Amino acid sequence: MAMNHFLQSPRVRARTSASDSGVLSSLSAIVGEEHLLVDPERVEPYGQDAVKEKFPPEAVVFPRTTAEISAILRLANEARFPVTARGGGVGYTGGAVPVEGGVVLGTDRMNQIKRISPDDLYVVAEPGVTTYALQQAVENEGLFYPPDPSSYKASFIGGNIAENAGGIRSVKYGVTRNYVLGLQVVLPRGEIIRTGGRTSKNVVGFDLTGLVCGSEGMLGIITEATLRLLPLPEATGTVRAAFKTMREACACIPGFTGERVTPVALEVLDRNSINAVESMFAFGLSPEATALMLVSVDGTVEETERTLSIVERVLRYGGAFDLVRARTKVEEDRLWDVRRALSPAIKRYGTLKLNEDVVVPRSRVPDLIERVEEIGRRFNTFVVNFGHAGDGNIHVNYMCDREDPEAVSRAREAVKETFAVAIELGGTISGEHGIGYVKAPYLDMALDPASIDTMKRIKQTLDPNNILNPGKMFT
Amino acid sequence: MAMNHFLQSPRVRARTSASDSGVLSSLSAIVGEEHLLVDPERVEPYGQDAVKEKFPPEAVVFPRTTAEISAILRLANEARFPVTARGGGVGYTGGAVPVEGGVVLGTDRMNQIKRISPDDLYVVAEPGVTTYALQQAVENEGLFYPPDPSSYKASFIGGNIAENAGGIRSVKYGVTRNYVLGLQVVLPRGEIIRTGGRTSKNVVGFDLTGLVCGSEGMLGIITEATLRLLPLPEATGTVRAAFKTMREACACIPGFTGERVTPVALEVLDRNSINAVESMFAFGLSPEATALMLVSVDGTVEETERTLSIVERVLRYGGAFDLVRARTKVEEDRLWDVRRALSPAIKRYGTLKLNEDVVVPRSRVPDLIERVEEIGRRFNTFVVNFGHAGDGNIHVNYMCDREDPEAVSRAREAVKETFAVAIELGGTISGEHGIGYVKAPYLDMALDPASIDTMKRIKQTLDPNNILNPGKMFT
Repeated sequence: MAMNHFLQSPRVRARTSASDSGVLSSLSAIVGEEHLLVDPERVEPYGQDAVKEKFPPEAVVFPRTTAEISAILRLANEARFPVTARGGGVGYTGGAVPVEGGVVLGTDRMNQIKRISPDDLYVVAEPGVTTYALQQAVENEGLFYPPDPSSYKASFIGGNIAENAGGIRSVKYGVTRNYVLGLQVVLPRGEIIRTGGRTSKNVVGFDLTGLVCGSEGMLGIITEATLRLLPLPEATGTVRAAFKTMREACACIPGFTGERVTPVALEVLDRNSINAVESMFAFGLSPEATALMLVSVDGTVEETERTLSIVERVLRYGGAFDLVRARTKVEEDRLWDVRRALSPAIKRYGTLKLNEDVVVPRSRVPDLIERVEEIGRRFNTFVVNFGHAGDGNIHVNYMCDREDPEAVSRAREAVKETFAVAIELGGTISGEHGIGYVKAPYLDMALDPASIDTMKRIKQTLDPNNILNPGKMFT
Repeated sequence: MAMNHFLQSPRVRARTSASDSGVLSSLSAIVGEEHLLVDPERVEPYGQDAVKEKFPPEAVVFPRTTAEISAILRLANEARFPVTARGGGVGYTGGAVPVEGGVVLGTDRMNQIKRISPDDLYVVAEPGVTTYALQQAVENEGLFYPPDPSSYKASFIGGNIAENAGGIRSVKYGVTRNYVLGLQVVLPRGEIIRTGGRTSKNVVGFDLTGLVCGSEGMLGIITEATLRLLPLPEATGTVRAAFKTMREACACIPGFTGERVTPVALEVLDRNSINAVESMFAFGLSPEATALMLVSVDGTVEETERTLSIVERVLRYGGAFDLVRARTKVEEDRLWDVRRALSPAIKRYGTLKLNEDVVVPRSRVPDLIERVEEIGRRFNTFVVNFGHAGDGNIHVNYMCDREDPEAVSRAREAVKETFAVAIELGGTISGEHGIGYVKAPYLDMALDPASIDTMKRIKQTLDPNNILNPGKMFT
């Protein structure tokens, strides 16, 4: 397969009509000379995301307005060069990476929060606002924007929508799509449309808002989003518990439903995760723990206390030990530190991390993790599993040495088998990260040919010249 | 405009290739003779919905399987006749009505609930299950399917999904789309696809699940749905309150947000609604009440009690009087009787009800209702406003005499002005009912030409022969 899964040495910069001096002059005229980068050294950082494979663009533009983006896409259709929109550039599947060269369109300058309406519970923001900045701004008004991908401090709202980002709180609150009321979008041929609106009910025509959400920048460039807000919960609380087996830990999950509790977040860490964080940071986790669970709830102060007691009861009944309840925000943060410590802690197990985000029905999480551990042993690849057990979305991290092609190849086979297992267990190959170019070779494992054909037809009819983010999703 | 808004005398049955004897034999071979209707008297009931305009189909088929539906659509593409899927047939915009003749495909026999998973919180159902039957089945397992269109006893899940139905509980719980995890769909040309899956996180490819939801039977026929469930709340409670003005009533709504309360339901009735139900049923509502509000909440028993007290405090502070709190299910039902009595009560004001479902940002509801009352006076048409104030989705009912063409014409102008007002106030022309053929002439008031063009392109690429539910959405 042409695209692969792993770090390559920097690729030769693709050459398209975007490098023509006429095109560059036009781009400069549209965005202003100071907002166009062409110097190879300056464009290089815009050629990669968290996958860290490099596909340098020919030029990078930073438009300020929707009209400028429309003009860029019209030019791209005339001169036939690829345009790839880029938000924070922290995705895990290469969605923002110009694999076929052309122009990267950075939304960094479109970073205004235009309006917060406490009365009508929405916020209007440009795509370049970080998720964190948006959350802070609405929380200052007593409001709440729940989606919280772990990249929230760096990721842009535009990217979150384009990838339909998930997050830790999605067990209770759902994913980004559930908060997008309306969009302004520049279509691939440059037309500007408004989808949806400011209301949570809207059934006028086909759901273009939903179609653009999660379309990975292939069907349009988001230039404004109207997002639904909730009242900010009064209190949150977290319990951490250790278990002797992952199966025991996960068996508690239906117990919460039985008690009519829907946790905000419900995370697990497997044995290798625990060993990794413990050996690096010495949190004092029990050496007997082979699974760790973090459960967060929210509500009023009284309700939160009451729900935490129910959670603790269910956990104890299910075999939990070393229960710790956070009683303040600081204590809560400290419990979550274990989860946050994972990324740095597992680095020592390999210079290349294949970070997958398979999802299965939540009751199958223990099966998934057992199967993944078996795959890791069979391919002699260290694997760390952690993530969102409450919605079945587990981050499977195969660790290997970037410079060892044989190890990389084994890890790559392990990933492919993991995808097959996730599908066999009733799940799929991506819960949060999307397809991009990284998972494109595996799309046909998850979707039937008629579904893929339908998606290609939609892409073709909206983007007949294949201008917008080519080389993604489909091989 | 060709399609119009109001009852006509029964139309002449359209004649397409569906009436050819060869086609009828093939249909009979596919579904079995006993599941094919052609007798004009027997097909007639399948030519209308709640709009009560008649467009008799040439034949009605009741397939049992996805494969049969696929065969029917392949035949329709060969012979070029229209196919219109029909669920409960209780829509308000003619979505299930064969305006261009052809075959009506009734999903009545596909009425099995295939699986309820309490562990993984989903239900798998065929499209012909009524919303009510589905709710009962999952509630028996302690689970909860929140969407509750008022037609829930008659409407089918397939129709709910095709129309992305809303309901009373959508203030807190959202609309049908928010509960659809995955679908099996027969595409217009007969291919069978599976979209989504059994997990709430799934970002593999474009969101075809979302595209089919609310597509009004124009992009595919739903043959199976996997729907997300929640734990059933322990308790619910309702408060009813009277106000001297609608503005006062609606001014309370942000007060709930301020107290961090998201009601399950938040309904209002205007002056004419109150007079109508009171004069027919004598509920004993205060003669001083010109607006009535019903607020429901849910949660644990303690939480519900506590939240109801907050709701009452906010309402009293906002000028409410005659507060009644339901303390039991029976009392709660009695409070909601006022809302349920509306439909029968307003019948005396006209033999034709133009039931619209405009939506505005919720803070604009009082403006909307004042403007609608002014429109009603100006066009000398009795108008009743009630509905979902909590999400800005108001049912505006213009009443007139079916047999009085001049009165019908005035009511029709009033509707058009109402749509313009809803859009001017930041809303749109349909929150729940969809477009169908009834609102098709007004689509361009709500959407920009490039959006409509995009929708038409999607329709064209998936249904090149325009087989599936032609004559809807676009004029």
